[in-house]
Amino acid sequence: MTIHDALKNLVLDHIAVAVDDLDKSVLFYQNLGLVFEDEREVVEEQKVITAFSPIDHNTHLELLTPYGIKKEDGAIFQYLQKKGPGIHHLCFTVLNLEQKCFELKALGVQFLYSQAKIGAKKRLVNFIHPKSAGGVLIELSQKIE
Amino acid sequence: MTIHDALKNLVLDHIAVAVDDLDKSVLFYQNLGLVFEDEREVVEEQKVITAFSPIDHNTHLELLTPYGIKKEDGAIFQYLQKKGPGIHHLCFTVLNLEQKCFELKALGVQFLYSQAKIGAKKRLVNFIHPKSAGGVLIELSQKIE
Repeated sequence: MTIHDALKNLVLDHIAVAVDDLDKSVLFYQNLGLVFEDEREVVEEQKVITAFSPIDHNTHLELLTPYGIKKEDGAIFQYLQKKGPGIHHLCFTVLNLEQKCFELKALGVQFLYSQAKIGAKKRLVNFIHPKSAGGVLIELSQKIE
Repeated sequence: MTIHDALKNLVLDHIAVAVDDLDKSVLFYQNLGLVFEDEREVVEEQKVITAFSPIDHNTHLELLTPYGIKKEDGAIFQYLQKKGPGIHHLCFTVLNLEQKCFELKALGVQFLYSQAKIGAKKRLVNFIHPKSAGGVLIELSQKIE
């Protein structure tokens, strides 16, 4: 099996890192050698603002920090309060989210949402509970055509 | 700037995840859709055994768990005792580790080792202290020809 065959099934889309100060973190990773997209994306539902940098052909580093007047209600604000800054989740692209969730639930894997939601970049997303994934929060994401 | 230009500077090599049970974790990620290399690599100095799966063109997921008669002395054993399983570090490939460390130290970035060491896959490596990197342990790794 070639690497291209292996990546057909599942490919990493992004690593999400919760940060206290977006501009400071962007500068740190720029000093490391990363190049960021100019645009910042606000994800209203998650009450965050994000910065993206490519780190491989399909993969981005996503820095995210609480944003907006109700930012204290967002999961990232609460994560930072509880655990401090650090890696928040890994996101993999799947071809068919509904089928993948169905298969995994049959194996006893728990998800955060009973139904998939619309996430950043207008993808269809759900999250595997860290309890089901050895302490790692894993997002599964499907592109919508 | 194209994605290929951006990735010339810095590319993600692997995400290292500390796990309690290597076979169980491999099975979980296989169920997700990942394909693992058959070989397991023992890294004597770090007292771990590892399993690798490609997750993008240059990037692997590296699962690692304590291994060997003195495994209790290794950093991963101590990490698991203290924090439980989860994402341990991110590793980026750099072209010239010595130069990159020199540049970053001049900006006040702290490293774990005063001199680079030989890590997994016989690379030259050093680690940026999580205090200097917003709570993320970052490995910088240079291929040796």
